[in-house]
Amino acid sequence: MTETNLEKLKEFYRKFTKEREWDKYHTPKNLAMAVSIEASELQEHFLWKTEDEIKELLNNSEKKEKIKDELADVFAFLLRLSDVLDVDLIKAFYDKMEKNKKKYPIDKIKGNFKKYTEISD
Amino acid sequence: MTETNLEKLKEFYRKFTKEREWDKYHTPKNLAMAVSIEASELQEHFLWKTEDEIKELLNNSEKKEKIKDELADVFAFLLRLSDVLDVDLIKAFYDKMEKNKKKYPIDKIKGNFKKYTEISD
Amino acid sequence: MTETNLEKLKEFYRKFTKEREWDKYHTPKNLAMAVSIEASELQEHFLWKTEDEIKELLNNSEKKEKIKDELADVFAFLLRLSDVLDVDLIKAFYDKMEKNKKKYPIDKIKGNFKKYTEISD
Amino acid sequence: MTETNLEKLKEFYRKFTKEREWDKYHTPKNLAMAVSIEASELQEHFLWKTEDEIKELLNNSEKKEKIKDELADVFAFLLRLSDVLDVDLIKAFYDKMEKNKKKYPIDKIKGNFKKYTEISD
Repeated sequence: MTETNLEKLKEFYRKFTKEREWDKYHTPKNLAMAVSIEASELQEHFLWKTEDEIKELLNNSEKKEKIKDELADVFAFLLRLSDVLDVDLIKAFYDKMEKNKKKYPIDKIKGNFKKYTEISD
Repeated sequence: MTETNLEKLKEFYRKFTKEREWDKYHTPKNLAMAVSIEASELQEHFLWKTEDEIKELLNNSEKKEKIKDELADVFAFLLRLSDVLDVDLIKAFYDKMEKNKKKYPIDKIKGNFKKYTEISD
Repeated sequence: MTETNLEKLKEFYRKFTKEREWDKYHTPKNLAMAVSIEASELQEHFLWKTEDEIKELLNNSEKKEKIKDELADVFAFLLRLSDVLDVDLIKAFYDKMEKNKKKYPIDKIKGNFKKYTEISD
Repeated sequence: MTETNLEKLKEFYRKFTKEREWDKYHTPKNLAMAVSIEASELQEHFLWKTEDEIKELLNNSEKKEKIKDELADVFAFLLRLSDVLDVDLIKAFYDKMEKNKKKYPIDKIKGNFKKYTEISD
């Protein structure tokens, strides 16, 4: 994992924030709200649509671009929040996945829909 | 940016999903819902609390760990969705930040709260 | 509409809040966060599931009860926020529906999926 | 409570939906997504702002109207979902509040911030 880190992106955003004097708005509470609001805008692109209609949507380059921008917005605020909280997102990912491996052991989960949806309730 | 990419994390999660036969659940619509739900769980940690109380909260290592896990959950589903949609999150981040630079030019924004909150409405 | 109003429910919740000295937490910002968090818990019940699986879920009285409780949680915080903001939810509903009638005129909408999903984008 | 019911609003929305042939979109899953998305748009009005700035915002009649519309949107989809699920929202509210009374007994809660925020975690 040594070659993967998000330090440069965090620095980029830190500078962007500082230049605009937005640090005072970037409290953990506000940033967590912002992540949630952007995540909601992302899911709005899929509202009312069937999976087939979504496939069609994704073939439209203009719409695909909008969805890409929403993914970026969620990611950007998530990065900014992780920076403010001094959390390494990459490490957090692997740590959490280790917990998930134990929570959802392959032999109990595989091909067993009930298990999956029940456990994840 | 050559040294930063999220390919390994995506691969990790792809394998994790495949081993559990969860691919069929990981549609764009479901994954976007999942990102939003996890983002909401993240913000729940800050609900009702003042910024001072949140500082105190973050000094509690057990609670900090929970918040780290929530950040990871949002990140994981965001990564998984970007994999399914074949979007490069790092590139999407920089592309969107370029748009943000134009949308929020420093000289119009700096020290001007109204501008900030109005524009971001 | 004279016979329908939500005053009693608001009063009930106002008293409930006052007795616990929670008024100080019930700011518009916190309450709006709470509505969003509860709405997310509501949608979590449907995550990963197909419409058929959801039908089955709704036949399970224990799960139905949980979903009923989530609906109530969203409603309760929405009522509380409307009370704090001095908004009449019933009137707000009818006012908004009048706007929706103009935004989505029957003759342009009926049987036209594109129109619907495009307009609502 | 006999005089308070939301039947007329539900009927209004049911007719509105039927006239536009939208019933097929109004599945529980889609409606729950819609409630969450609207709740997020509601909270967006308060993002980045302090409580003082929010007070000022609420004195602006144009912005107040927008917030009223967002409250209505959340309420409308919540009503529609409760109609589709055949849940009486008023009854659900009182049932849930009875549970809350037991969960947050006055004597244990009053004037005790920790208790409140801990229990509600």
